[in-house]
Amino acid sequence: MLRVVKIGGNVTDSPGLLGGFLEEFTSLESPKILVHGGGKHATRLAGRLGIENNMIDGRRITDATMLDIVIQCFTAVNKKLVAQLQALGNRAVGLSGADLNCIRAKKRIHPEVDYGYVGDIEKVNFGGIQALLDNGVVPVFCALTHDGNGQLLNTNADTIASAIAGNSDQESELIYCFEKNGVLTDENEAKSVIDVLNQTNYQTFLQSGVIHSGMKPKLDNAFEALRNGVKQVRITNYRLLDKGTEIQL
Amino acid sequence: MLRVVKIGGNVTDSPGLLGGFLEEFTSLESPKILVHGGGKHATRLAGRLGIENNMIDGRRITDATMLDIVIQCFTAVNKKLVAQLQALGNRAVGLSGADLNCIRAKKRIHPEVDYGYVGDIEKVNFGGIQALLDNGVVPVFCALTHDGNGQLLNTNADTIASAIAGNSDQESELIYCFEKNGVLTDENEAKSVIDVLNQTNYQTFLQSGVIHSGMKPKLDNAFEALRNGVKQVRITNYRLLDKGTEIQL
Repeated sequence: MLRVVKIGGNVTDSPGLLGGFLEEFTSLESPKILVHGGGKHATRLAGRLGIENNMIDGRRITDATMLDIVIQCFTAVNKKLVAQLQALGNRAVGLSGADLNCIRAKKRIHPEVDYGYVGDIEKVNFGGIQALLDNGVVPVFCALTHDGNGQLLNTNADTIASAIAGNSDQESELIYCFEKNGVLTDENEAKSVIDVLNQTNYQTFLQSGVIHSGMKPKLDNAFEALRNGVKQVRITNYRLLDKGTEIQL
Repeated sequence: MLRVVKIGGNVTDSPGLLGGFLEEFTSLESPKILVHGGGKHATRLAGRLGIENNMIDGRRITDATMLDIVIQCFTAVNKKLVAQLQALGNRAVGLSGADLNCIRAKKRIHPEVDYGYVGDIEKVNFGGIQALLDNGVVPVFCALTHDGNGQLLNTNADTIASAIAGNSDQESELIYCFEKNGVLTDENEAKSVIDVLNQTNYQTFLQSGVIHSGMKPKLDNAFEALRNGVKQVRITNYRLLDKGTEIQL
């Protein structure tokens, strides 16, 4: 079974958590794919350059200047992860959606908000990814896609992971890995992990405020993956084998 | 015949020259490999961040802070080139030496100068590169290698191109492409291209000052490639098919 693992920014940003994660990821049998962002790095670099970070509903407004920053930060995180994965014995290769034309997107057109160079995924070309997997390669995707006309675009890493898993030619599991143990009923209580989250109790949790609206985009991507045929979706901590929260339709 | 093309910073930095180059490169038959640096971008970003650029004999002193800048800039240039090459129909993939463990290096130890995170190439694993070429892929290498222990290293792009061509399993040509028409006897006269440069007239040109010492590292890499069995080495402009200066032993 193909495992597509998305690693969150609070894990990549903490050397301790990252080291633990990379060991756990290495212990997973192939085929496996890693997906990451780099938003925290982009926010920091923009700050040092005196450039304002504009976010709407957790999404980054990406004008040309910010796109340059995003590209620099995401690709740098990418190659550093690849070097570390190689050291642990993974045959890793760092990719954007432009490489091998893996993920084509179109620039988002929104009636009210100009998101800039933000891309909504149009097509995952799984053939190129499968050829790498068949050779024992571990693809590592950063949160960049391209429009097929030479333009890189900023695309949410959770969405990329969901789209890759949902378009794979084989049975797949999608794992969203972050700094908590799963989706919690009490964010101050590490053990309050929701065991199974389905569309019914999800709505109840949302309405009661137990699940914060900040989790909504991630859960929307999780449900979307299941609708696209992904066999299992989990939200868990950096120790990937902890069950965490299982998402069901 | 495999063509390994190194593109200079004055070409990648000029949208006009770069556009022309990418079209010429696209028109080359596969197998082909592109190699680039990004030093001008790194110098600019360092300047904007108030970080000093230290160069010795044209080589960048790369402490941890500068390495971060170098990684960001080289990998960003890399993925932008990949997106543009894809738009022109090349099946491009952007790589560092860490990807697929293609190029392993060791941190330079120098008796007098601490170059920091600068890597001298130990081994080109051509097998992984060949597997890509066999699938019609166009590898695009930035000027980063790794030490096999998780550390990325800054390595001169001319040297990377020479090492890749010199370690290929097939007949290869190495083309150093820059903003001039070749090695010139008069740098103000575009037509004063030296047709053939060999070790004998090279020494004469060096002693008479016709060839500037700044060209020396590039020519050393060119001669090294020939000694490693590369069939043809040329230094030419962005129109790759112009003959330029042919290097001979």
